[in-house]
Amino acid sequence: MEKIIFYHPLREFVSQVFVRMGCPVADAALASRALLQADLRGIDSHGVARLSGYVRLWKANRINANPKVRVVHESPSTVVVDGDRGLGLTVAPQAMDLAIKKAQTAGTGWAAIRNSNHFGIAAYHAMKALEHDMIGIAMTNASPLVAPTFAVERMLGTNPICVAIPAGEQPPFVADFATSAAANGKLEILQRKNEEAPTGWIQNKKGEPSANPHELKTGGALLPLGGDRERGGHKGFCLGAWVDIFSAVLSGANYGPWVPPFVDFLAPPANPVGEGIGHFLGAMRIDAFRPSQEFKQQMDRWITRFRQTQTIDGVHAITIPGDPEREFEKERLARGIPLLPKVADDLQQLSSEMNIKLW
Amino acid sequence: MEKIIFYHPLREFVSQVFVRMGCPVADAALASRALLQADLRGIDSHGVARLSGYVRLWKANRINANPKVRVVHESPSTVVVDGDRGLGLTVAPQAMDLAIKKAQTAGTGWAAIRNSNHFGIAAYHAMKALEHDMIGIAMTNASPLVAPTFAVERMLGTNPICVAIPAGEQPPFVADFATSAAANGKLEILQRKNEEAPTGWIQNKKGEPSANPHELKTGGALLPLGGDRERGGHKGFCLGAWVDIFSAVLSGANYGPWVPPFVDFLAPPANPVGEGIGHFLGAMRIDAFRPSQEFKQQMDRWITRFRQTQTIDGVHAITIPGDPEREFEKERLARGIPLLPKVADDLQQLSSEMNIKLW
Repeated sequence: MEKIIFYHPLREFVSQVFVRMGCPVADAALASRALLQADLRGIDSHGVARLSGYVRLWKANRINANPKVRVVHESPSTVVVDGDRGLGLTVAPQAMDLAIKKAQTAGTGWAAIRNSNHFGIAAYHAMKALEHDMIGIAMTNASPLVAPTFAVERMLGTNPICVAIPAGEQPPFVADFATSAAANGKLEILQRKNEEAPTGWIQNKKGEPSANPHELKTGGALLPLGGDRERGGHKGFCLGAWVDIFSAVLSGANYGPWVPPFVDFLAPPANPVGEGIGHFLGAMRIDAFRPSQEFKQQMDRWITRFRQTQTIDGVHAITIPGDPEREFEKERLARGIPLLPKVADDLQQLSSEMNIKLW
Repeated sequence: MEKIIFYHPLREFVSQVFVRMGCPVADAALASRALLQADLRGIDSHGVARLSGYVRLWKANRINANPKVRVVHESPSTVVVDGDRGLGLTVAPQAMDLAIKKAQTAGTGWAAIRNSNHFGIAAYHAMKALEHDMIGIAMTNASPLVAPTFAVERMLGTNPICVAIPAGEQPPFVADFATSAAANGKLEILQRKNEEAPTGWIQNKKGEPSANPHELKTGGALLPLGGDRERGGHKGFCLGAWVDIFSAVLSGANYGPWVPPFVDFLAPPANPVGEGIGHFLGAMRIDAFRPSQEFKQQMDRWITRFRQTQTIDGVHAITIPGDPEREFEKERLARGIPLLPKVADDLQQLSSEMNIKLW
């Protein structure tokens, strides 16, 4: 049975877990906020469900809980950050702050980050720009699960992109999506429900279309956004490759098949080509392009017009990117966050092991 | 029967057509280079096939052949350009030069352009950055052909994105793709061949899946990259929306359903929300992130490793974005550009009408 826990006590728990790992208190608070943003926004695969994974990687000495994050290169609008093997959950926000600072003077600011770890959901980082009247961009590479068009080998992660754009009276436009046809979290849901996947999501180890959500355990792969070649899968490959190059080749992180796995039971590839995983973040000041109020009025008009799009059944309204996640956030802040039994058990185990009160 | 014409005489012809429209000689030369880059790279739908369309729009007074392109807003890393209703083929290169100049001092440079027209292929503009040791980005909005997920109304253009990234000994990575499942040019090819379209490209006016490549003439629409909702079409919608907002809301151009059509026989929408169509261009200096040689070595390694990806049949090699277009360019520079009969007729008519020698 599902367990329900409220946001604030859960965040307190997560924060204490990070402190127990050796994170400074401020870092732990930041990391817990970043991680739980996923649970609030309904991206259950990227939130507390991963907490024990972070702990295991830390135990395996693959996460540095107290990193010295440093700037290794910069220009008026760019900065390259070495995350010192820290949690992406704390490294990326620091890098985003630097990008925002660059944007304040240069109009735009761009941060390439190496030597980091998973940063939670991209939206958390991109959305930091909104409160500064800036557009935010966040992308990250990840360990390889996606096969390029015509390939049987997994070469790219699900490499998400988020673009967050402020509006006026309307809520912001926040598009956050994996560049694969489906995120791995979607497969996990199907596995739990014992359901088949739609065609176009997965291939088996021979490269044949498959509906088996367990296929990745036996050499299968996710397909890029678009699916097969005929339906534009090569464009999804382009997108994933773009994210990989910006996140890792610009920064000096590992790319493609060299990106280290997020799980402690798989060793990082031998002969790394860079350090850790990479992210790429950007902030663009609205008024570096046009007066902020003018822009926001037009964004309101854009959003309002798209909401009025004539729909197939004439009933359902078109979803503006960010709408579903906002609904989740409202609901879950009010009524609590539902935890799957396996996730609740995981947290219970951490609670006992670290002697931190959970319920 | 197809006609074959060599690049240089064709360019001379196109250039003279633009001069006859009233373009200054330098602009005409630039526009012909930009336009024919499409034919060289095998994107036949975007090259000379569109020349008579540009002429008709000019006759309809919807293209200003001698625009005063001006900067209307700027910051150290950004510039907003008003194209004065000029040819996108000349406006965009001027804006890209400004972005490159900004990047030289600020590390990155970004141009939002309004009051423009179609700019040919995005790759032409993005690739300008390569010779400066920069990454180039180009996107543009276009008249609405794509229905958002669950909609029957056409709200977005095929809104392409190009990212061009320099390498060392390897050729550059150049990904240039429509954010719809298929570009409109692909439908035109099927129409000419009298063939059906794969599922996931098109819907009819009721929003039902269709294989009829003529569907757009009777109220149908293209689907976003990904196809239907289950296969990630909402992500393609996010991408197209992103391009629309960056190209037009940042710059002050028309967006969404207000983007004026490229054809003279359809009037621009009443009550425009901006001026002309919009583009968004970017240039990022490699050494604003890391030493250029180091970056290029890693890009060579990235490309080399991806070329070695294990393929389904074990024979075909993986295509690196830009490979197919480079093959076309080599072939067509050497052996000429094949013109479909309809396109050859069109050019012949322009030739007679304007009294410019073609063959």
